[in-house]
Amino acid sequence: MHALEKMFRPKSVAVIGASGDPDKLGGRTLFHIKELGYKGRIYPINVSSKEVQGLPAWPSVADLPEVPDSALIVLPAPLVEQALEACAAKGILHVQVLSSGFAEEGGEGVAMQERLVGIVRRNKMRITGPNALGSISPPDGFFGTFSSLLATARPGPGKVGVATQSGAYGSHIYAVAGFRGVGISRAIATGNEADIDVAACIDYLAEDPGTSVICASLEGCKDGDRLRRALLKAAAARKPVIIMKVGSTAEGAAAAATHTGSLAGEDRIIDTVFRECGAWRASSIEEMIDIAYVCSIAPLPPSPGVGILSVSGGLGVLMADAVIGAGLTVPPMSAEVLRRIVEIQPAAGGRNPIDTTAQLNGRMHIFESISQAMMEGAELGSVVFYLAHLGRNVLRFPPLEKALAGLRENFPDRLVVAVMTHVDEIRLKLESLGIPVFEDPTRAVRAIAGAAHVRSLQLAAEAVPDIARGAPLDLVSTNEAGAKQLLAKAGVPVLPERVCTTAQNAASAAAAMGFPVVMKILSDDIPHKTEIGGVLLNVVDAAAAAAGFEELMRRARAAKPQARLDGVLIAPMVSGGVETIIGVQRDPVFGPMVMFGLGGVSVELFNDVAFATAPLTPARAEALIASVRGARLLDGWRGAPPLAKAALVSTLCMISQIAAAHRDVIESIEINPFLVMADGGYALDALIAIRG
Amino acid sequence: MHALEKMFRPKSVAVIGASGDPDKLGGRTLFHIKELGYKGRIYPINVSSKEVQGLPAWPSVADLPEVPDSALIVLPAPLVEQALEACAAKGILHVQVLSSGFAEEGGEGVAMQERLVGIVRRNKMRITGPNALGSISPPDGFFGTFSSLLATARPGPGKVGVATQSGAYGSHIYAVAGFRGVGISRAIATGNEADIDVAACIDYLAEDPGTSVICASLEGCKDGDRLRRALLKAAAARKPVIIMKVGSTAEGAAAAATHTGSLAGEDRIIDTVFRECGAWRASSIEEMIDIAYVCSIAPLPPSPGVGILSVSGGLGVLMADAVIGAGLTVPPMSAEVLRRIVEIQPAAGGRNPIDTTAQLNGRMHIFESISQAMMEGAELGSVVFYLAHLGRNVLRFPPLEKALAGLRENFPDRLVVAVMTHVDEIRLKLESLGIPVFEDPTRAVRAIAGAAHVRSLQLAAEAVPDIARGAPLDLVSTNEAGAKQLLAKAGVPVLPERVCTTAQNAASAAAAMGFPVVMKILSDDIPHKTEIGGVLLNVVDAAAAAAGFEELMRRARAAKPQARLDGVLIAPMVSGGVETIIGVQRDPVFGPMVMFGLGGVSVELFNDVAFATAPLTPARAEALIASVRGARLLDGWRGAPPLAKAALVSTLCMISQIAAAHRDVIESIEINPFLVMADGGYALDALIAIRG
Repeated sequence: MHALEKMFRPKSVAVIGASGDPDKLGGRTLFHIKELGYKGRIYPINVSSKEVQGLPAWPSVADLPEVPDSALIVLPAPLVEQALEACAAKGILHVQVLSSGFAEEGGEGVAMQERLVGIVRRNKMRITGPNALGSISPPDGFFGTFSSLLATARPGPGKVGVATQSGAYGSHIYAVAGFRGVGISRAIATGNEADIDVAACIDYLAEDPGTSVICASLEGCKDGDRLRRALLKAAAARKPVIIMKVGSTAEGAAAAATHTGSLAGEDRIIDTVFRECGAWRASSIEEMIDIAYVCSIAPLPPSPGVGILSVSGGLGVLMADAVIGAGLTVPPMSAEVLRRIVEIQPAAGGRNPIDTTAQLNGRMHIFESISQAMMEGAELGSVVFYLAHLGRNVLRFPPLEKALAGLRENFPDRLVVAVMTHVDEIRLKLESLGIPVFEDPTRAVRAIAGAAHVRSLQLAAEAVPDIARGAPLDLVSTNEAGAKQLLAKAGVPVLPERVCTTAQNAASAAAAMGFPVVMKILSDDIPHKTEIGGVLLNVVDAAAAAAGFEELMRRARAAKPQARLDGVLIAPMVSGGVETIIGVQRDPVFGPMVMFGLGGVSVELFNDVAFATAPLTPARAEALIASVRGARLLDGWRGAPPLAKAALVSTLCMISQIAAAHRDVIESIEINPFLVMADGGYALDALIAIRG
Repeated sequence: MHALEKMFRPKSVAVIGASGDPDKLGGRTLFHIKELGYKGRIYPINVSSKEVQGLPAWPSVADLPEVPDSALIVLPAPLVEQALEACAAKGILHVQVLSSGFAEEGGEGVAMQERLVGIVRRNKMRITGPNALGSISPPDGFFGTFSSLLATARPGPGKVGVATQSGAYGSHIYAVAGFRGVGISRAIATGNEADIDVAACIDYLAEDPGTSVICASLEGCKDGDRLRRALLKAAAARKPVIIMKVGSTAEGAAAAATHTGSLAGEDRIIDTVFRECGAWRASSIEEMIDIAYVCSIAPLPPSPGVGILSVSGGLGVLMADAVIGAGLTVPPMSAEVLRRIVEIQPAAGGRNPIDTTAQLNGRMHIFESISQAMMEGAELGSVVFYLAHLGRNVLRFPPLEKALAGLRENFPDRLVVAVMTHVDEIRLKLESLGIPVFEDPTRAVRAIAGAAHVRSLQLAAEAVPDIARGAPLDLVSTNEAGAKQLLAKAGVPVLPERVCTTAQNAASAAAAMGFPVVMKILSDDIPHKTEIGGVLLNVVDAAAAAAGFEELMRRARAAKPQARLDGVLIAPMVSGGVETIIGVQRDPVFGPMVMFGLGGVSVELFNDVAFATAPLTPARAEALIASVRGARLLDGWRGAPPLAKAALVSTLCMISQIAAAHRDVIESIEINPFLVMADGGYALDALIAIRG
């Protein structure tokens, strides 16, 4: 049994702070448990009453005739600690603390919350909250929450599990899912997450046989690896995870920081982790529910091709645009199939979308043969019918239902979607056949795309390989020479270099190397050399090398009088190739993350940079490179020969391995630039930062 | 009276092809006109019956006792020509041809449609269609259409005008607008657009006093200037235009071409024209209706700042992200106002969004004082309330209604929006107060943004200045030298250059100019010199110049033996600065369009290019430059001095003037690169193409 099963689906539950007044939170919580179909045993705890809302009540959990699976605490904050201790003493190991007034209010609340955590740790308990909304399990009739939503709308039973941090966010989802007819298996809002977080709930839902689709929303994340494991477990179980993370913009992140006290990291890191672990990030609650709706009643499209069959040319084009915009494809039908379609409907046009035109003269049965033909005309993962207002016409709809149902039956692994204005009767019938129904064509396409993308992400998701934490890092110096030495030892290609400490030394080293050379100031205290004029390019002879040495030392002393100068680094001057920037940065939540971008204006002007969790395999390194738009430059730009991407791939893998093996020590590694040439690549500059 | 008034709002109407059978198109059209509240005079035309659907019928329009304002033709295609002639003979000048079987079917249909156009031209008539859906004017009870939608849903009267080319597209909009409670003033679907197109209908709606918001959808556009004039007229009348154009992707455009026979142009040109003329392009029908809904009941936000007041921190952050993502701002409240807010609600947090928390204990009245305070805390064009499920609670809602209504009353020019799950009773009440209600927070924000953007576009919209078509273009040659000569004469800065026809000539010209120089092959037949190796950079002395001449001629002869070679162009070699690409290209629909982008990888890799209608004013040229992301390079990149943007602005204006004055002659002008330096700029290469 999963550790959280008793929390989500208790067979018996105590309500600590149960009140006879349903306007109070403790009264409302008990009311919801008592009145909405729960079959388990209910124990109201109330110090002063023997009976609450018609149920026998107990003064304390200590007095209960059994150890209930779970308890809900709905007391004023100062009373919670004692109640939690009482639960521990009784042996109640699953407790939901719905009371607020803890860390979210700062000050003494933070300390009170810390004390709750102490009780939990000492007694090996699990709690949600404080400041949680509670949990629901509609198939069990269990509504352990004071959510005011239930006064006017109750989510129905179904297969979609919901885990959110925010209670309001959660109950908005339950409400809208309910209006949309999307049934819920379990739902929980974790509040302050003193113990159980959204990741732990996803982990539960990934195992829960009653859940087939997971919706989740994060405000922050404290344990990146736990989140990764939970998402990967869901992906392995082939349960689509549709997830949101608020605070994606700087302004939103600032607001989130005020709200939750948690600093938002680089939003693209979260994006990367979701994608790597097979979860689809939704951009709105509506989109989340649209995708969950599709995934909960129909198969996920096995391939990106979308067939569009429309009674309107214009709407067909609208949907084709939306399909492309959402990252799927509209493969054209084969000529042979197009001939068959025109035989069936002479007015039909297009190659995909297929436009039947509205000139049907009641021949609704043609949709069956046309749509079946389309399946042979191209590789389609899904088919969408645009049917105007036919979904409002109960008398004329049966042949269309037959066409849709026939497609589902003959191609059970493909997604079939109907877009039309409609009445409930027709929609419910189609849904029972596994056919989602939408009113808006663009929303339908975006939901299809979400379902297709979540499937391909699931299939591609793989755990990050573990890396043995190695021996202490053998780093002589964090300056450029030291960093390059370390990287070179690991196999990263660097140019032959010499550290020189006198002008004469520099002149002879340069002459031995062959002109032209590059000269760079070397100092742990000057990580950004170009900012102080600390780099000389294209030094052409020995005299210039000697003069250059003196000049670099002078500039460094002038700009940073306190800096310890280790001399000047001399290297051969190379030209041509494409400059890239590669690095690994330790994210406080998600650990070492690899970064790749192109040099020049690509990163700064166009933000053309991508991330991946370290360590990388060669395949993942290649995918990382390909996800950057500028990577086309590496394939041979304007007739230039293709560049040695292999050098880039192996370097990315190597630095990601180093950073992962020494994640407790290394703050960042940056190689800028890594020059990719036709016959190899070189780390021209490197920097390693150690955790302070 | 507007030329189309009688089409949209006839006082009397003939239905040619009226049938007694409402299952037939002619029967259904008559039924809709007769049964849905039309107060005008109805004349069924039917060759064989004296009475149709209980109304007296006439064998021909010739027999009618008056000249009706308009006629609808619902006959088989072969009978339409004769019917239209009969209308002309009777003096009926406004006719809607609903019959299909014309140009949309190709072949003989095209010729038949051409003959209809002949009749229209000869008789100074106006027609919609053929293959039109008809028009509706719900405030008049006029439903002159056979749309099957009306069998189950009828759009209500209101202020939103709708003009679409596609009938299905149109009736989808009418249906969804109806479900959403968005009332319609007039709506029309123009079909094959043999005469009246969507632009002409927008022109009508811009004048129509019953219409305050315009929704439009195009599949193609034949007359760009007419569309511009109509959109500008609507912008000047301060009627928001929310518009769609299908075929925005290559795949969609291909499908649209199959469907309408019209080639889709560069989609960004359409985007540019919409924006320049003050129209907001919607990305889905749902978004279109959301924005129309807001604009039809509430004021357009006068500034981009959005105040967010939320009972949930997480939802507040979600909306802040959406606001930024939609191009608006969330200005933080002043410290003084934040102090007042915390006095009102001690648990409140955030600077904007303001999170009241859900701990309200029934103190709903605080929303009034908090929201009023927010108006003083920052410059806000709109305020959005997130109210969870309070919109479902009729008993608890009145203080919230008071807060919302108070804001509307005290700040009548600001947009106030409520986001919550809700019951119709509360929604309708708020709508009557001018407060839009949304269920999904992201959709609400996108609609607010659409309303704000359409307002600022309207205010910025200005007609393109007319340019006198000048004397014939004084272009000696279309090769680089000829193009530069023309541009130089117009004031575009070019480097001193010499055309040389012998090696010796080249050597002495280069010496006189001063080394290094650039040498380029000169030939009308070789527009792309670099592709054949026709450019030599950094030629350092006279001997190299002489050898370079021979080499360039040799390469040109080898690559293009048939080319007429005009010699070699010699110019001083300049370095530094930022390369830009500027040009004007004649769009077949929209005329000369200026293009601006940066050199290097910006255009090709990142598609960082923007367009504007020619001719440009300096202000519009500056806006064009600023709309390109890479333009930041011109402001002084990484400590470099700012570059002479003025040279770029004046060159853009000059070439746009030339292209506009000679729009019938010039196909394109391209200056690539135009080099911008700190102290000026130069057209380093230029090409002019003449219409073939």
